[in-house]
Amino acid sequence: MTPFSITRRVEFGDTDMAGIMHFSNYFRFMEVAESDFLRSLGLSVSWIADGVKWGFPRVSVACDYQKPAKFQDVLTIGVKLEKLGTKSVSYRFEFTNQRGDAVAAGRMTSVFCRSLGPDHIEALDIPPHIRAKLEEQS
Amino acid sequence: MTPFSITRRVEFGDTDMAGIMHFSNYFRFMEVAESDFLRSLGLSVSWIADGVKWGFPRVSVACDYQKPAKFQDVLTIGVKLEKLGTKSVSYRFEFTNQRGDAVAAGRMTSVFCRSLGPDHIEALDIPPHIRAKLEEQS
Amino acid sequence: MTPFSITRRVEFGDTDMAGIMHFSNYFRFMEVAESDFLRSLGLSVSWIADGVKWGFPRVSVACDYQKPAKFQDVLTIGVKLEKLGTKSVSYRFEFTNQRGDAVAAGRMTSVFCRSLGPDHIEALDIPPHIRAKLEEQS
Amino acid sequence: MTPFSITRRVEFGDTDMAGIMHFSNYFRFMEVAESDFLRSLGLSVSWIADGVKWGFPRVSVACDYQKPAKFQDVLTIGVKLEKLGTKSVSYRFEFTNQRGDAVAAGRMTSVFCRSLGPDHIEALDIPPHIRAKLEEQS
Repeated sequence: MTPFSITRRVEFGDTDMAGIMHFSNYFRFMEVAESDFLRSLGLSVSWIADGVKWGFPRVSVACDYQKPAKFQDVLTIGVKLEKLGTKSVSYRFEFTNQRGDAVAAGRMTSVFCRSLGPDHIEALDIPPHIRAKLEEQS
Repeated sequence: MTPFSITRRVEFGDTDMAGIMHFSNYFRFMEVAESDFLRSLGLSVSWIADGVKWGFPRVSVACDYQKPAKFQDVLTIGVKLEKLGTKSVSYRFEFTNQRGDAVAAGRMTSVFCRSLGPDHIEALDIPPHIRAKLEEQS
Repeated sequence: MTPFSITRRVEFGDTDMAGIMHFSNYFRFMEVAESDFLRSLGLSVSWIADGVKWGFPRVSVACDYQKPAKFQDVLTIGVKLEKLGTKSVSYRFEFTNQRGDAVAAGRMTSVFCRSLGPDHIEALDIPPHIRAKLEEQS
Repeated sequence: MTPFSITRRVEFGDTDMAGIMHFSNYFRFMEVAESDFLRSLGLSVSWIADGVKWGFPRVSVACDYQKPAKFQDVLTIGVKLEKLGTKSVSYRFEFTNQRGDAVAAGRMTSVFCRSLGPDHIEALDIPPHIRAKLEEQS
Protein backbone atom coordinates (compact mmCIF):
# COMPACT_ATOMS: atom_id res chain seq x y z
CA MET A 1 0.00 0.00 0.00
CA THR A 2 1.39 3.40 -0.98
CA PRO A 3 1.28 5.82 1.94
CA PHE A 4 -1.03 8.77 1.39
CA SER A 5 0.44 12.28 1.34
CA ILE A 6 -0.37 15.81 0.27
CA THR A 7 1.76 18.90 -0.24
CA ARG A 8 0.88 22.36 0.98
CA ARG A 9 2.79 25.61 0.78
CA VAL A 10 3.39 27.78 3.85
CA GLU A 11 1.67 31.08 3.06
CA PHE A 12 2.62 34.51 4.39
CA GLY A 13 -0.42 34.52 6.66
CA ASP A 14 0.60 31.15 8.13
CA THR A 15 3.74 32.71 9.64
CA ASP A 16 4.15 34.64 12.88
CA MET A 17 6.58 37.33 14.04
CA ALA A 18 9.25 34.69 14.70
CA GLY A 19 9.36 34.32 10.90
CA ILE A 20 8.13 30.73 10.99
CA MET A 21 4.81 28.91 10.64
CA HIS A 22 2.69 29.52 13.73
CA PHE A 23 2.42 26.31 15.74
CA SER A 24 -1.40 26.26 15.59
CA ASN A 25 -1.40 26.18 11.80
CA TYR A 26 0.09 22.67 11.73
CA PHE A 27 -3.33 21.50 12.91
CA ARG A 28 -4.99 23.22 9.97
CA PHE A 29 -2.54 21.47 7.67
CA MET A 30 -3.29 18.13 9.39
CA GLU A 31 -6.99 18.73 8.84
CA VAL A 32 -6.40 19.29 5.11
CA ALA A 33 -4.40 16.06 4.97
CA GLU A 34 -7.12 14.18 6.89
CA SER A 35 -9.86 15.56 4.61
CA ASP A 36 -7.94 14.70 1.45
CA PHE A 37 -7.17 11.23 2.80
CA LEU A 38 -10.85 10.60 3.51
CA ARG A 39 -11.85 12.13 0.15
CA SER A 40 -9.44 9.73 -1.60
CA LEU A 41 -11.52 6.91 -0.07
CA GLY A 42 -14.84 8.45 -1.03
CA LEU A 43 -15.39 9.59 2.57
CA SER A 44 -15.51 12.99 4.30
CA VAL A 45 -14.94 14.61 7.70
CA SER A 46 -18.47 16.07 7.61
CA TRP A 47 -21.59 15.36 5.56
CA ILE A 48 -25.36 15.44 5.70
CA ALA A 49 -27.50 12.35 5.15
CA ASP A 50 -31.18 11.88 5.93
CA GLY A 51 -31.30 15.46 7.15
CA VAL A 52 -28.72 14.74 9.86
CA LYS A 53 -25.07 15.84 10.15
CA TRP A 54 -22.49 13.07 10.34
CA GLY A 55 -18.76 13.43 10.73
CA PHE A 56 -15.52 12.82 12.56
CA PRO A 57 -14.97 15.51 15.21
CA ARG A 58 -11.54 15.34 16.86
CA VAL A 59 -11.23 14.26 20.48
CA SER A 60 -7.47 14.35 20.86
CA VAL A 61 -4.63 15.97 18.89
CA ALA A 62 -0.93 16.54 19.42
CA CYS A 63 2.07 17.88 17.56
CA ASP A 64 5.84 17.77 18.09
CA TYR A 65 7.89 20.40 16.31
CA GLN A 66 11.33 19.43 15.06
CA LYS A 67 12.42 22.17 12.69
CA PRO A 68 10.77 25.49 11.75
CA ALA A 69 8.69 25.70 8.58
CA LYS A 70 9.19 28.96 6.75
CA PHE A 71 7.30 31.14 4.27
CA GLN A 72 7.10 29.45 0.88
CA ASP A 73 8.28 26.09 2.17
CA VAL A 74 6.35 23.33 0.45
CA LEU A 75 5.53 20.77 3.12
CA THR A 76 4.75 17.15 2.37
CA ILE A 77 2.32 15.76 4.92
CA GLY A 78 2.19 11.98 5.08
CA VAL A 79 -0.94 10.43 6.60
CA LYS A 80 -0.90 7.07 8.29
CA LEU A 81 -3.97 5.45 9.81
CA GLU A 82 -2.54 4.22 13.10
CA LYS A 83 -5.54 2.72 14.83
CA LEU A 84 -9.10 1.93 13.84
CA GLY A 85 -11.30 1.59 16.92
CA THR A 86 -14.97 0.78 17.20
CA LYS A 87 -15.96 4.44 17.18
CA SER A 88 -12.68 6.22 16.51
CA VAL A 89 -9.87 6.49 14.02
CA SER A 90 -6.34 7.67 14.89
CA TYR A 91 -3.92 9.16 12.39
CA ARG A 92 -0.26 10.00 12.43
CA PHE A 93 1.03 12.87 10.28
CA GLU A 94 4.65 13.38 9.24
CA PHE A 95 5.66 16.83 7.97
CA THR A 96 8.77 17.14 5.82
CA ASN A 97 10.01 20.15 3.86
CA GLN A 98 11.21 20.35 0.24
CA ARG A 99 14.75 19.51 1.37
CA GLY A 100 13.56 16.30 3.02
CA ASP A 101 14.01 17.56 6.58
CA ALA A 102 11.59 16.27 9.20
CA VAL A 103 9.64 19.35 10.33
CA ALA A 104 6.95 18.02 12.65
CA ALA A 105 4.93 14.97 13.60
CA GLY A 106 1.29 15.03 14.65
CA ARG A 107 -1.43 12.75 15.90
CA MET A 108 -5.19 13.06 15.76
CA THR A 109 -8.03 10.90 17.02
CA SER A 110 -11.44 11.49 15.49
CA VAL A 111 -14.70 9.92 16.60
CA PHE A 112 -17.59 9.00 14.34
CA CYS A 113 -20.53 11.15 15.41
CA ARG A 114 -24.09 12.08 14.57
CA SER A 115 -24.92 15.70 15.29
CA LEU A 116 -28.39 17.06 15.90
CA GLY A 117 -26.84 20.38 16.92
CA PRO A 118 -23.86 21.56 19.01
CA ASP A 119 -25.53 20.24 22.17
CA HIS A 120 -26.49 16.90 20.70
CA ILE A 121 -23.33 15.33 19.28
CA GLU A 122 -23.39 11.58 19.82
CA ALA A 123 -20.53 9.10 19.26
CA LEU A 124 -21.55 5.96 17.35
CA ASP A 125 -19.96 2.79 16.03
CA ILE A 126 -18.34 3.38 12.67
CA PRO A 127 -20.78 1.78 10.18
CA PRO A 128 -19.52 -1.23 8.16
CA HIS A 129 -19.33 0.52 4.76
CA ILE A 130 -17.11 3.25 6.20
CA ARG A 131 -15.09 0.81 8.30
CA ALA A 132 -14.41 -1.33 5.22
CA LYS A 133 -12.84 1.62 3.40
CA LEU A 134 -10.75 2.63 6.39
CA GLU A 135 -9.61 -0.96 7.04
CA GLU A 136 -7.97 -1.11 3.63
CA GLN A 137 -5.68 1.72 4.78
CA SER A 138 -4.86 0.43 8.24
CA MET B 1 -0.51 30.06 45.52
CA THR B 2 -3.61 31.06 43.55
CA PRO B 3 -3.74 29.31 40.21
CA PHE B 4 -3.55 31.63 37.21
CA SER B 5 -6.48 31.80 34.81
CA ILE B 6 -7.94 33.97 32.09
CA THR B 7 -11.36 34.10 30.45
CA ARG B 8 -11.97 34.40 26.74
CA ARG B 9 -15.19 34.43 24.76
CA VAL B 10 -15.72 32.11 21.79
CA GLU B 11 -16.25 34.42 18.83
CA PHE B 12 -18.29 33.70 15.69
CA GLY B 13 -15.09 33.33 13.66
CA ASP B 14 -13.75 30.77 16.15
CA THR B 15 -16.53 28.34 15.22
CA ASP B 16 -16.74 25.92 12.31
CA MET B 17 -19.64 24.42 10.35
CA ALA B 18 -20.26 21.90 13.15
CA GLY B 19 -21.42 24.90 15.18
CA ILE B 20 -18.62 24.55 17.73
CA MET B 21 -15.17 26.05 18.29
CA HIS B 22 -12.76 24.68 15.72
CA PHE B 23 -10.28 22.34 17.38
CA SER B 24 -7.24 24.35 16.21
CA ASN B 25 -8.45 27.49 17.98
CA TYR B 26 -7.92 25.94 21.42
CA PHE B 27 -4.21 26.36 20.73
CA ARG B 28 -4.72 30.07 20.05
CA PHE B 29 -6.56 30.33 23.36
CA MET B 30 -3.74 28.44 25.13
CA GLU B 31 -1.27 30.88 23.64
CA VAL B 32 -3.23 33.82 25.03
CA ALA B 33 -3.29 32.14 28.45
CA GLU B 34 0.47 31.44 28.25
CA SER B 35 1.23 35.05 27.21
CA ASP B 36 -0.94 36.49 29.98
CA PHE B 37 0.62 34.13 32.52
CA LEU B 38 4.13 35.22 31.51
CA ARG B 39 3.07 38.87 31.41
CA SER B 40 1.75 38.53 34.97
CA LEU B 41 5.33 37.60 35.96
CA GLY B 42 6.90 40.44 34.00
CA LEU B 43 7.95 37.99 31.26
CA SER B 44 6.93 37.48 27.63
CA VAL B 45 6.80 34.78 24.94
CA SER B 46 8.87 36.97 22.62
CA TRP B 47 11.05 40.02 23.08
CA ILE B 48 14.07 41.83 21.69
CA ALA B 49 17.14 42.59 23.81
CA ASP B 50 20.58 43.66 22.65
CA GLY B 51 19.29 43.59 19.06
CA VAL B 52 18.48 39.88 19.31
CA LYS B 53 15.11 38.08 19.47
CA TRP B 54 14.48 35.95 22.54
CA GLY B 55 11.47 33.86 23.31
CA PHE B 56 9.77 30.58 24.07
CA PRO B 57 8.86 28.77 20.84
CA ARG B 58 6.74 25.65 21.38
CA VAL B 59 8.23 22.22 20.76
CA SER B 60 5.30 20.05 21.77
CA VAL B 61 1.58 20.67 22.23
CA ALA B 62 -1.51 18.55 22.75
CA CYS B 63 -5.20 18.92 23.46
CA ASP B 64 -7.99 16.58 24.56
CA TYR B 65 -11.53 17.69 23.86
CA GLN B 66 -14.23 16.77 26.37
CA LYS B 67 -17.26 18.89 25.48
CA PRO B 68 -17.89 21.31 22.61
CA ALA B 69 -17.38 25.02 23.17
CA LYS B 70 -20.00 27.11 21.42
CA PHE B 71 -20.39 30.65 20.10
CA GLN B 72 -20.52 33.15 22.97
CA ASP B 73 -19.37 30.64 25.56
CA VAL B 74 -17.01 32.34 27.98
CA LEU B 75 -14.19 29.91 28.65
CA THR B 76 -12.02 30.02 31.72
CA ILE B 77 -8.52 28.76 30.94
CA GLY B 78 -6.50 27.76 33.96
CA VAL B 79 -2.71 27.68 33.56
CA LYS B 80 -0.49 25.42 35.62
CA LEU B 81 3.27 25.29 35.26
CA GLU B 82 3.84 21.54 35.29
CA LYS B 83 7.56 21.21 34.77
CA LEU B 84 10.47 23.61 34.69
CA GLY B 85 13.42 22.07 32.84
CA THR B 86 16.88 23.46 32.18
CA LYS B 87 15.83 24.89 28.83
CA SER B 88 12.09 24.24 28.74
CA VAL B 89 8.87 24.98 30.55
CA SER B 90 5.74 22.80 30.37
CA TYR B 91 2.24 24.03 31.04
CA ARG B 92 -1.12 22.40 31.54
CA PHE B 93 -4.28 24.25 30.53
CA GLU B 94 -7.79 23.44 31.77
CA PHE B 95 -10.73 24.84 29.80
CA THR B 96 -14.09 25.17 31.53
CA ASN B 97 -17.22 26.91 30.32
CA GLN B 98 -19.49 29.37 32.16
CA ARG B 99 -21.55 26.47 33.52
CA GLY B 100 -18.44 24.89 35.07
CA ASP B 101 -18.25 22.02 32.57
CA ALA B 102 -14.80 20.73 31.68
CA VAL B 103 -14.39 21.53 27.97
CA ALA B 104 -10.81 20.61 27.14
CA ALA B 105 -7.34 20.06 28.60
CA GLY B 106 -4.12 21.00 26.87
CA ARG B 107 -0.39 20.77 27.30
CA MET B 108 2.43 22.82 25.89
CA THR B 109 6.19 22.66 26.17
CA SER B 110 8.12 25.77 25.21
CA VAL B 111 11.90 26.08 24.96
CA PHE B 112 13.93 29.17 25.77
CA CYS B 113 15.57 30.29 22.53
CA ARG B 114 17.66 32.99 20.95
CA SER B 115 16.77 33.68 17.35
CA LEU B 116 19.08 35.25 14.81
CA GLY B 117 16.51 34.46 12.11
CA PRO B 118 14.23 31.53 11.19
CA ASP B 119 17.28 29.42 10.30
CA HIS B 120 19.21 30.28 13.43
CA ILE B 121 17.00 29.50 16.39
CA GLU B 122 19.09 28.15 19.26
CA ALA B 123 17.86 26.57 22.51
CA LEU B 124 19.60 27.88 25.62
CA ASP B 125 19.47 27.40 29.38
CA ILE B 126 16.77 29.54 30.94
CA PRO B 127 18.69 32.41 32.57
CA PRO B 128 18.51 32.73 36.38
CA HIS B 129 16.36 35.90 36.52
CA ILE B 130 13.67 34.26 34.32
CA ARG B 131 13.99 30.91 36.10
CA ALA B 132 13.49 32.60 39.47
CA LYS B 133 10.15 34.07 38.36
CA LEU B 134 8.95 30.78 36.87
CA GLU B 135 10.05 28.81 39.95
CA GLU B 136 7.68 30.81 42.12
CA GLN B 137 4.83 29.38 40.04
CA SER B 138 5.97 25.77 39.82
CA MET C 1 -24.79 59.07 22.97
CA THR C 2 -21.46 57.62 24.03
CA PRO C 3 -19.73 55.87 21.14
CA PHE C 4 -19.30 52.14 21.63
CA SER C 5 -15.78 50.69 21.78
CA ILE C 6 -13.91 47.60 22.88
CA THR C 7 -10.25 46.90 23.52
CA ARG C 8 -8.37 43.83 22.32
CA ARG C 9 -4.74 42.87 22.63
CA VAL C 10 -2.69 41.79 19.60
CA GLU C 11 -1.62 38.22 20.38
CA PHE C 12 1.52 36.47 19.13
CA GLY C 13 -0.55 34.35 16.75
CA ASP C 14 -2.15 37.50 15.27
CA THR C 15 1.22 38.61 13.89
CA ASP C 16 2.98 37.58 10.69
CA MET C 17 6.63 37.38 9.66
CA ALA C 18 6.69 41.15 9.07
CA GLY C 19 6.38 41.44 12.85
CA ILE C 20 2.98 43.12 12.68
CA MET C 21 -0.67 42.07 12.91
CA HIS C 22 -1.63 40.19 9.73
CA PHE C 23 -4.01 42.31 7.67
CA SER C 24 -6.75 39.66 7.68
CA ASN C 25 -6.95 39.66 11.47
CA TYR C 26 -8.36 43.20 11.55
CA PHE C 27 -11.57 41.64 10.23
CA ARG C 28 -11.63 39.20 13.14
CA PHE C 29 -11.21 42.14 15.52
CA MET C 30 -14.04 44.01 13.72
CA GLU C 31 -16.24 40.96 14.15
CA VAL C 32 -15.56 40.94 17.89
CA ALA C 33 -16.42 44.64 18.06
CA GLU C 34 -19.62 44.08 16.01
CA SER C 35 -20.66 41.13 18.23
CA ASP C 36 -20.01 43.06 21.43
CA PHE C 37 -21.87 46.08 20.06
CA LEU C 38 -24.91 43.95 19.22
CA ARG C 39 -24.67 42.12 22.56
CA SER C 40 -24.69 45.48 24.37
CA LEU C 41 -28.11 46.05 22.72
CA GLY C 42 -29.41 42.61 23.61
CA LEU C 43 -28.87 41.46 20.01
CA SER C 44 -26.49 38.99 18.31
CA VAL C 45 -24.84 38.28 14.96
CA SER C 46 -26.32 34.76 14.97
CA TRP C 47 -29.10 33.06 16.88
CA ILE C 48 -31.70 30.32 16.63
CA ALA C 49 -35.42 31.02 17.07
CA ASP C 50 -38.35 28.78 16.17
CA GLY C 51 -35.86 26.16 14.99
CA VAL C 52 -34.45 28.53 12.36
CA LYS C 53 -31.08 30.30 12.18
CA TRP C 54 -31.18 34.10 12.04
CA GLY C 55 -28.29 36.45 11.77
CA PHE C 56 -26.35 39.20 10.06
CA PRO C 57 -23.96 37.73 7.46
CA ARG C 58 -21.61 40.29 5.93
CA VAL C 59 -22.01 41.32 2.31
CA SER C 60 -19.26 43.92 2.06
CA VAL C 61 -16.20 44.74 4.14
CA ALA C 62 -13.15 46.95 3.76
CA CYS C 63 -10.12 48.08 5.73
CA ASP C 64 -7.52 50.82 5.32
CA TYR C 65 -4.27 50.37 7.21
CA GLN C 66 -2.56 53.47 8.57
CA LYS C 67 0.06 52.23 11.02
CA PRO C 68 1.19 48.72 11.92
CA ALA C 69 -0.24 47.06 15.02
CA LYS C 70 2.35 45.06 16.92
CA PHE C 71 2.45 42.16 19.37
CA GLN C 72 1.02 43.19 22.74
CA ASP C 73 -0.47 46.42 21.41
CA VAL C 74 -3.85 46.98 23.03
CA LEU C 75 -6.14 48.27 20.30
CA THR C 76 -9.27 50.27 20.97
CA ILE C 77 -11.88 49.60 18.33
CA GLY C 78 -14.62 52.19 18.10
CA VAL C 79 -17.88 51.11 16.47
CA LYS C 80 -20.20 53.56 14.72
CA LEU C 81 -23.45 52.52 13.10
CA GLU C 82 -23.18 54.47 9.85
CA LYS C 83 -26.31 53.44 7.97
CA LEU C 84 -29.42 51.48 8.84
CA GLY C 85 -31.10 50.20 5.68
CA THR C 86 -34.28 48.19 5.26
CA LYS C 87 -32.40 44.90 5.31
CA SER C 88 -28.85 45.95 6.11
CA VAL C 89 -26.74 47.70 8.69
CA SER C 90 -23.37 49.38 7.97
CA TYR C 91 -20.70 49.98 10.56
CA ARG C 92 -17.51 51.97 10.68
CA PHE C 93 -14.64 50.80 12.90
CA GLU C 94 -11.75 52.98 14.08
CA PHE C 95 -8.66 51.21 15.42
CA THR C 96 -6.30 53.14 17.68
CA ASN C 97 -3.38 51.86 19.71
CA GLN C 98 -2.50 52.52 23.36
CA ARG C 99 -0.54 55.63 22.36
CA GLY C 100 -3.59 57.10 20.62
CA ASP C 101 -2.26 56.56 17.09
CA ALA C 102 -4.80 55.80 14.37
CA VAL C 103 -3.98 52.26 13.24
CA ALA C 104 -6.75 51.34 10.79
CA ALA C 105 -10.31 52.10 9.73
CA GLY C 106 -12.79 49.52 8.54
CA ARG C 107 -16.29 49.23 7.19
CA MET C 108 -18.75 46.36 7.22
CA THR C 109 -22.23 45.93 5.83
CA SER C 110 -24.28 43.06 7.25
CA VAL C 111 -27.67 41.91 5.99
CA PHE C 112 -30.44 40.49 8.15
CA CYS C 113 -30.98 36.90 7.01
CA ARG C 114 -32.88 33.74 7.76
CA SER C 115 -30.90 30.59 7.05
CA LEU C 116 -32.38 27.18 6.35
CA GLY C 117 -28.90 25.94 5.46
CA PRO C 118 -25.89 27.23 3.48
CA ASP C 119 -27.90 27.03 0.23
CA HIS C 120 -30.98 28.72 1.63
CA ILE C 121 -29.90 32.03 3.12
CA GLU C 122 -32.56 34.67 2.51
CA ALA C 123 -32.30 38.43 3.13
CA LEU C 124 -35.29 39.89 4.96
CA ASP C 125 -36.45 43.26 6.28
CA ILE C 126 -34.99 43.93 9.72
CA PRO C 127 -37.92 43.32 12.09
CA PRO C 128 -39.23 46.31 14.11
CA HIS C 129 -37.97 45.16 17.55
CA ILE C 130 -34.42 44.80 16.22
CA ARG C 131 -34.65 47.97 14.16
CA ALA C 132 -35.77 49.95 17.22
CA LYS C 133 -32.63 48.92 19.14
CA LEU C 134 -30.32 49.72 16.22
CA GLU C 135 -32.03 53.09 15.58
CA GLU C 136 -31.08 54.28 19.05
CA GLN C 137 -27.44 53.91 18.01
CA SER C 138 -27.64 55.47 14.55
CA MET D 1 -2.44 38.04 -22.08
CA THR D 2 -4.02 35.11 -20.25
CA PRO D 3 -5.47 36.21 -16.92
CA PHE D 4 -3.77 34.64 -13.91
CA SER D 5 -5.81 32.42 -11.61
CA ILE D 6 -5.42 29.80 -8.91
CA THR D 7 -7.79 27.29 -7.39
CA ARG D 8 -8.15 26.58 -3.68
CA ARG D 9 -10.48 24.28 -1.82
CA VAL D 10 -12.58 25.51 1.10
CA GLU D 11 -11.43 23.45 4.08
CA PHE D 12 -13.48 22.49 7.13
CA GLY D 13 -11.55 24.98 9.26
CA ASP D 14 -12.33 27.77 6.77
CA THR D 15 -16.04 27.53 7.58
CA ASP D 16 -18.01 29.06 10.44
CA MET D 17 -21.17 28.04 12.28
CA ALA D 18 -23.30 29.44 9.44
CA GLY D 19 -21.94 26.52 7.42
CA ILE D 20 -20.11 28.77 4.95
CA MET D 21 -16.58 30.14 4.52
CA HIS D 22 -15.93 32.79 7.17
CA PHE D 23 -15.75 36.22 5.56
CA SER D 24 -12.23 36.92 6.84
CA ASN D 25 -10.81 33.86 5.08
CA TYR D 26 -11.42 35.38 1.64
CA PHE D 27 -8.52 37.68 2.45
CA ARG D 28 -6.28 34.69 3.16
CA PHE D 29 -7.29 33.25 -0.19
CA MET D 30 -6.55 36.61 -1.89
CA GLU D 31 -3.13 36.58 -0.28
CA VAL D 32 -2.42 33.13 -1.70
CA ALA D 33 -3.52 34.34 -5.15
CA GLU D 34 -1.37 37.48 -4.83
CA SER D 35 1.67 35.43 -3.71
CA ASP D 36 1.25 32.92 -6.52
CA PHE D 37 0.77 35.73 -9.05
CA LEU D 38 4.00 37.41 -7.90
CA ARG D 39 5.82 34.07 -7.79
CA SER D 40 4.77 33.42 -11.41
CA LEU D 41 6.67 36.62 -12.28
CA GLY D 42 9.72 35.68 -10.23
CA LEU D 43 8.67 38.11 -7.48
CA SER D 44 7.44 37.73 -3.89
CA VAL D 45 5.36 39.53 -1.25
CA SER D 46 8.29 39.38 1.17
CA TRP D 47 11.99 38.75 0.83
CA ILE D 48 15.37 39.57 2.35
CA ALA D 49 18.15 41.21 0.35
CA ASP D 50 21.31 42.85 1.65
CA GLY D 51 20.23 41.96 5.19
CA VAL D 52 17.05 44.03 4.84
CA LYS D 53 13.40 42.94 4.55
CA TRP D 54 11.56 44.05 1.42
CA GLY D 55 7.96 43.42 0.53
CA PHE D 56 4.49 44.58 -0.34
CA PRO D 57 2.44 45.18 2.85
CA ARG D 58 -1.23 45.92 2.18
CA VAL D 59 -2.61 49.39 2.80
CA SER D 60 -6.19 48.87 1.66
CA VAL D 61 -8.37 45.81 1.08
CA ALA D 62 -12.04 45.17 0.40
CA CYS D 63 -14.37 42.31 -0.40
CA ASP D 64 -17.96 42.03 -1.64
CA TYR D 65 -19.71 38.73 -1.03
CA GLN D 66 -22.17 37.51 -3.63
CA LYS D 67 -22.85 33.87 -2.83
CA PRO D 68 -21.70 31.67 0.04
CA ALA D 69 -18.70 29.38 -0.45
CA LYS D 70 -19.16 26.04 1.24
CA PHE D 71 -16.99 23.24 2.61
CA GLN D 72 -15.23 21.40 -0.22
CA ASP D 73 -16.08 24.03 -2.83
CA VAL D 74 -13.13 24.52 -5.13
CA LEU D 75 -12.82 28.24 -5.74
CA THR D 76 -11.10 29.73 -8.75
CA ILE D 77 -9.54 33.07 -7.86
CA GLY D 78 -8.71 35.25 -10.83
CA VAL D 79 -6.09 37.98 -10.28
CA LYS D 80 -6.05 41.17 -12.31
CA LEU D 81 -3.47 43.90 -11.81
CA GLU D 82 -5.72 46.96 -11.89
CA LYS D 83 -3.34 49.81 -11.24
CA LEU D 84 0.42 50.16 -11.02
CA GLY D 85 1.36 53.31 -9.10
CA THR D 86 4.77 54.73 -8.30
CA LYS D 87 4.92 52.95 -4.95
CA SER D 88 1.81 50.77 -5.01
CA VAL D 89 0.12 48.01 -6.92
CA SER D 90 -3.65 47.35 -6.89
CA TYR D 91 -5.24 44.01 -7.65
CA ARG D 92 -8.76 42.82 -8.29
CA PHE D 93 -9.72 39.26 -7.36
CA GLU D 94 -12.73 37.40 -8.73
CA PHE D 95 -13.89 34.29 -6.83
CA THR D 96 -15.99 31.72 -8.68
CA ASN D 97 -17.03 28.26 -7.55
CA GLN D 98 -16.84 24.95 -9.43
CA ARG D 99 -20.30 25.59 -10.93
CA GLY D 100 -19.15 28.91 -12.38
CA ASP D 101 -21.12 31.03 -9.91
CA ALA D 102 -19.62 34.38 -8.91
CA VAL D 103 -18.89 34.03 -5.18
CA ALA D 104 -17.02 37.21 -4.25
CA ALA D 105 -14.90 40.05 -5.59
CA GLY D 106 -12.02 41.63 -3.74
CA ARG D 107 -9.52 44.42 -4.06
CA MET D 108 -6.12 44.93 -2.50
CA THR D 109 -3.56 47.71 -2.67
CA SER D 110 -0.02 46.85 -1.60
CA VAL D 111 2.85 49.27 -1.21
CA PHE D 112 6.50 48.52 -1.91
CA CYS D 113 8.34 48.84 1.41
CA ARG D 114 11.67 48.37 3.08
CA SER D 115 11.43 47.20 6.66
CA LEU D 116 14.08 47.69 9.33
CA GLY D 117 11.60 46.39 11.92
CA PRO D 118 7.91 46.87 12.72
CA ASP D 119 8.53 50.50 13.66
CA HIS D 120 10.62 51.29 10.62
CA ILE D 121 8.59 50.33 7.56
CA GLU D 122 9.22 52.81 4.75
CA ALA D 123 7.34 53.10 1.44
CA LEU D 124 9.62 53.43 -1.59
CA ASP D 125 9.30 53.74 -5.37
CA ILE D 126 8.94 50.32 -6.97
CA PRO D 127 12.38 49.65 -8.49
CA PRO D 128 12.62 49.36 -12.32
CA HIS D 129 13.32 45.60 -12.49
CA ILE D 130 10.20 44.85 -10.40
CA ARG D 131 8.13 47.47 -12.20
CA ALA D 132 9.06 45.95 -15.59
CA LYS D 133 7.70 42.56 -14.57
CA LEU D 134 4.48 44.03 -13.15
CA GLU D 135 3.95 46.25 -16.22
CA GLU D 136 3.75 43.21 -18.45
CA GLN D 137 0.67 42.16 -16.46
CA SER D 138 -1.08 45.52 -16.28
